[in-house]
Parts: sequence; C-alpha cells; structure tokens
Amino acid sequence: MAVGSTELMTLLPVKGISIGVVECGIKYENRKDLVIFRLEEHSTIAGVFTKNAFCAAPVVVSQQHLASEVASRYLIINTGNANAGTGEQGYSDALATCDYLAELESVDPKSILPFSTGVIGENLPMDRVLEGISAARHHFIEDNWQNAAWGILTTDTIPKGLSVQFDHEGERITVTGISKGSGMIKPNMATMLSFVATDARVSPACLHQILDETTATSFNRITVDGDTSTNDSSMLIATGQAQLPECTGSDSTLYEPLKIAIAEVMLHLAQSIIRDGEGATKFVTIETTEAGTRQEALDVAYTIAHSPLVKTALNASDANWGRILAAIGRAGVPDLDVSNINIQLNGVNIVESGCRAVSYTEEAGSEAMAKEEIMISVSLGRGNVSDKIYTTDLSHDYISINADYRS
Amino acid sequence: MAVGSTELMTLLPVKGISIGVVECGIKYENRKDLVIFRLEEHSTIAGVFTKNAFCAAPVVVSQQHLASEVASRYLIINTGNANAGTGEQGYSDALATCDYLAELESVDPKSILPFSTGVIGENLPMDRVLEGISAARHHFIEDNWQNAAWGILTTDTIPKGLSVQFDHEGERITVTGISKGSGMIKPNMATMLSFVATDARVSPACLHQILDETTATSFNRITVDGDTSTNDSSMLIATGQAQLPECTGSDSTLYEPLKIAIAEVMLHLAQSIIRDGEGATKFVTIETTEAGTRQEALDVAYTIAHSPLVKTALNASDANWGRILAAIGRAGVPDLDVSNINIQLNGVNIVESGCRAVSYTEEAGSEAMAKEEIMISVSLGRGNVSDKIYTTDLSHDYISINADYRS
Repeated sequence: MAVGSTELMTLLPVKGISIGVVECGIKYENRKDLVIFRLEEHSTIAGVFTKNAFCAAPVVVSQQHLASEVASRYLIINTGNANAGTGEQGYSDALATCDYLAELESVDPKSILPFSTGVIGENLPMDRVLEGISAARHHFIEDNWQNAAWGILTTDTIPKGLSVQFDHEGERITVTGISKGSGMIKPNMATMLSFVATDARVSPACLHQILDETTATSFNRITVDGDTSTNDSSMLIATGQAQLPECTGSDSTLYEPLKIAIAEVMLHLAQSIIRDGEGATKFVTIETTEAGTRQEALDVAYTIAHSPLVKTALNASDANWGRILAAIGRAGVPDLDVSNINIQLNGVNIVESGCRAVSYTEEAGSEAMAKEEIMISVSLGRGNVSDKIYTTDLSHDYISINADYRS
Repeated sequence: MAVGSTELMTLLPVKGISIGVVECGIKYENRKDLVIFRLEEHSTIAGVFTKNAFCAAPVVVSQQHLASEVASRYLIINTGNANAGTGEQGYSDALATCDYLAELESVDPKSILPFSTGVIGENLPMDRVLEGISAARHHFIEDNWQNAAWGILTTDTIPKGLSVQFDHEGERITVTGISKGSGMIKPNMATMLSFVATDARVSPACLHQILDETTATSFNRITVDGDTSTNDSSMLIATGQAQLPECTGSDSTLYEPLKIAIAEVMLHLAQSIIRDGEGATKFVTIETTEAGTRQEALDVAYTIAHSPLVKTALNASDANWGRILAAIGRAGVPDLDVSNINIQLNGVNIVESGCRAVSYTEEAGSEAMAKEEIMISVSLGRGNVSDKIYTTDLSHDYISINADYRS
C-alpha cells in the first residue's frame, strides 16, 4: 500500500478541457482504460518524454505531431498495452488511432497525441481501442478529472492528482493535474504519465520553459528502482480560457505565481508516484547540501537512492550509516574528502567529519529510522549547491511484485 | 546457498609462502579470523584497491607501505571488523598492528600490509588482534591455504580458492589463490579480498602488468548489487622460488603461460564470489557483442546487471525481454539504433532487430530461463568490440540477508 497521506483531493475542472473516459477491455474487463482529453482551439501544449533509446511507438508519434505546425487538440491515453517493442506495426497502429479520431472529429491527425502504458511487446488490440475512441468522444465532460485519474492507472494502488488555484489581477487561475506510475517499469508494465493543465494563456515557448523548470524539481527528482520506462511522458497544457493577458516569459507578472502553482501540482504528482512505489514502506527524501556542483549533488543523492544496501537498510529501519557513506564514496565525486562529510537522518547526527557522530546512539538512530517519512541529509562541505530527490526502500513486496507474479 | 559447483579443490602450497591462521575472537568465537601471510625475501607483490573515496584505514596503510622502498614481507588479514569509518583512531590502529608484528619479527613496519573486513564504524579490538598476531606467527605453515581460505571469510557461505600448475622449461610453476566476498558490502560487513601467489620470479613492473590485465577480466567484471566496498583489495605475489629466469615483461617466454594461469585462478575466484552472491539463485553471464567501444559494451552489460527489474525477472525465471531492452535503452549509448539489437538467452533468440524474435515462444524462453546458469548475449550491431561480466539475480533472500537480520 502507498506510504503516507494519499487521499485523492477534489480535482477542479480546467476551462477549455473536456475529458472522455471509457472501459474498452484492452487488457482487463471492468476497468476504465481509455481516456481522451479534448482541448479547445488556441490551447498550447508542451511535453517532455523518456530519454530511453528504446522508446515506444506512441512516444515517437506524439513527438512528431508536437513538432509539426499543427496545434494539438486531442490526447488519447490507453492503458493495458504500452505499444512498445512492437516495431513497424506499433508505429502504424499509433498513427491509425490518430487517424481514426481525426476522421470522426474532422481534424488533422497531427492534432492528436497518443499515449500508451501497459504490457511491452504485444500489439495494440486495435478493434477494442478504436471502439473505445468512438465511445469516449460521446462523453466529453469538463468535470471528469477524477475519472481520468483512475482511467490512466495500470498497477498503481492509488489515483494521483491535485488542483491548485490562485488569484491574479482579479481572475482565478486553476491548475489541475493527474499522473500514474509505481515502478519505473512494472512487471511487463511500463511508464510514468502525467497530464497537467491550466486555464491561463501561455505562449508555447513560455510553457516549455515552465515545464522544464518544474520537471527539474519534480519528475526528474524521483526514482524507485533506477529503471527508466520506454513510455514516460509529462504534458503541460494551457487552454487560455482565463481572461488574462498571455504569459510570454519570466518578465510577465503571471509567470512566477503560475510556475509556483504548476510546480506544486507537479511535485505532488511526482511524490505520489514514490508513495505508491512498488512495495514501498518508506517515503525517503535525500538531500545533498554544500556540494560543489549540481551534478555532484545529484550523483551523491542518486547513488544513495539506488544502493540496494541502503534501500534494504531503510526497509529494515536500520540506521546503517556505513552503507550511506560507502555509497557516497563510490558516487564518482572527484577528489572527495570524506572527512568533510556530515550526515543527518531525520535530524539526528549520524556522521560527523566522515566518522560516526560522537553523540550518536543506536537508539536515536533506530527511533529516527522507524518513521515512515525519512529525510537523509548529506553535507559534502565542498560548496554551496543543494538539491534533493525522492525515493523508496526495497522490500520483500518489491521482489514479490516483480518476480513472483507476472501481470 | 551458492550456485553451481562450488566445492573447494585442493590448494597447493606456493614455495616461499607460509601462512598462520588463528582464532582470536574479534567478533565471533570459534571462528578462524586472523591470517598472516609470510613471504620469503626477494618476493615481489602488486595490489589493486577499492576506488571508493571512503576507503578504510588498512587500505590507506597498505597503499602507503607498498609505495615505500621497503619490500613487503607480511600480510595481516583480520575478519570481523573492517576498520572503516574509524578516522584517526582507525589509521593509528592499522599502523599499530604493523608495528607490533614488525617488532616481533625484527623487520621494518613498512614491510607489513594490513587488510581488514567486517563491521564498518567500530574500532578494532586491538588486544584481541595483537594476541592473534602473536599466536599466528608461531604457526607459519606452507601447506595452509585451505585454512586461510576459511580464515578470511565473513558472511560467505563457501570458501573460495583454486590452484593451477603448468610446466615451463622443465620447471613446474604453481599459482594458488583465495578470495572472499558475497555482497559488495554485507550488512555492515564489507569487502572483496583476494590473495593470489606464484613461485615464479616476476619483476615488480611485470607483476603489476599481469595483475592489471587479469583483474580486468575477473574482479573488474563482476557485480552483485553495484555497491563497491570500502576495503576491496586484490593482491598478487611472486616469490621467485622456482628455478627460472625472472619474467620481466610480455617479451619473456614465461609471460603468456603465467598470465594465463593467473587469469584462470583470478576468474575462478571472481566467479566464486558471484556464485556465493547474497541470495543468489542464478549465475548470470552478460555478454555484449558488436559494440562500438569497450565502454559502451560494459555500460550495456552493467546497466542490465544492475537493473532490479531484470534481476527480479531472472529470479522468477521469466524471460522478460522487454526489461532487458529497456535497460539497454537507458544505458547511455549515444545514438543507439535499437532496430539493430539482437538478444539471445541461453542460445534462444528472444529479440531480433529490436523486437520480439519471430521464432520466439514463451515456452522456449521459460525453458532457457529455468536453468541455474544463464547467458544473456546482446548484439548491438555497431562495431566489433565484445566484453562480458558476471552477476546474480535479486531474490527474497537478498532482502532477508540485508534487511531482516543485522550481523
């Protein structure tokens, strides 16, 4: 089960977006498995995608359609099948889903972006997908984010979403987002997906800038098992339905409050994925301070986060500082002087100057580690750069989910 | 339990080396935990050590003593305590062990190399260590490698060793080695240690060259969990007691046969560590062929080897080619064209041209994966470089060993 407070709050509609959610039995019966977002004309959209060289057909098609001159109007998301590792057939299937909806809605196929998540290596069951598309377009509803949050899940145990509102120059602006993901790749199941939308008007370049900056502090700061999916996609949409001047860059007065709201939604979505991480029993924040560069701050944090020995110690609530130090030592930081390193665990000093802290006791360490929410703070004593990432422990359930069963 | 055939073969003495092995109760009672190697004068020695910035005091002292002008005569190895994360005290304790034996044996302290493995972050119990040193020097025996193989173990489940002999110009040359290690870092226990010796006469520079070349195909090609210990050390000794001219480099006739024999011993020792990997149920060879560079061959192999999803699939005997492909895709190979990738699993074609092989069946994949010894062959179709590494699966027992218990 997911770690911590994970109740889905009310998701507010975003003017200019309506959503169709249906069951079409792609892999399982009685499960919402196809979602279509419909964007009003003049919406803008930005996306970031998996860097995995083995990326799935829908990722290729979405990137091509985004790169075209044609404005995006529809996003089709299916679960149950990732359409990855499917070669030429997969590519033409992804195109065919776009063509089908384009014909029904009388729009350019390039205005449609496909997203898939689920089993790798099997062809899309096109009859069921097309039937689902046909059905979903008859149920476009503005207040439908809650259903969409359920409709994009695969083996997640909880839906993930958040709405934030703020007032700017007398106008109320809404940001709503949903995401899915639990391991980076599930047992043959793939993918982190995220869809965030606002009714603010934002220029394409500015929207990209906001997406890049907020991804850097959210989806690019989480890791369950270090495995990157073939289908990861994070989309940011601005419908421009709010009666405010267009936000065109960081000199617009709307820029900062909008970015803060979007960042809050994105961070919540990213952290919810970690809380729902496969077999997770801990929500772990790893913070590096006093690093010389951002790269070394992240190298240290990720090396700790990916160490199976640190992860199993976290699972055991064992304040095993030797494993944390050993992970830091192999993080590849040039000329690292370990005698400058201090480590705190939920506020308890465990390492000072590279050795066990004088004040440290096993009791204090065990008490700090017994908590569900763990903060590991590593100070490198090399500079003034800080960064932090979010991860989970490694549990028997992770093995069970990924080894004992095959979805 | 260890995977495959793991019986310890007879270990042959190496002329010029005698070994003392005692129980001194450093951490556990009734367990051999201190070993001293005594080398005849005019022996040569070469060592490679952990690259972990957080390296242990004995590693620092051994490197300093090796770098001095003084020829090495004694190696002291204790288990039960890694003398790592112990700061100044640890450093002076490591020096003190050398001083103590030096005084008893009337040699320069710099002729003594200390090695430690065991718990991180606790000071060496010096009274017991010095008592053990005092006792061990009264029991130097040539034919004592078997005891030494047991005496250097920590949480290993099997002793690891091999002897190889070959004839060269009418003289019989012996190479004998022992090693320990099971995870890269145990539950607060550390370290891969290896000691290999020959009675051939080898110049220091040539011995280093042979150690570098044979380490590259053995200890630098294994991984259990990606965690590098603070105490890893691999030592190669040549006593020069065989009646043959000194081997001074690759132009000596002895060079090739000696290197082959040493490589065989080192590979066996390295593979034995993998067979005894924590919770291992599979012995896995990952081979990359047709790579453009050695680096990309190794990046691909290690990314597969470290993927928790591949490791859990191996544990489940699930021929989950999607996970292997996804790992390859994130290995950071520049401009990787996945449509050139072929993958075989124990000879069964599972991926052809980046997609599931046409001939592939679940039955064939499952049958191949059911074996204890697994060979994953990845052909990148980019060049003619090949390399291979050795690893294990990720099992419930790994979690139990590292999370449920604390040694």
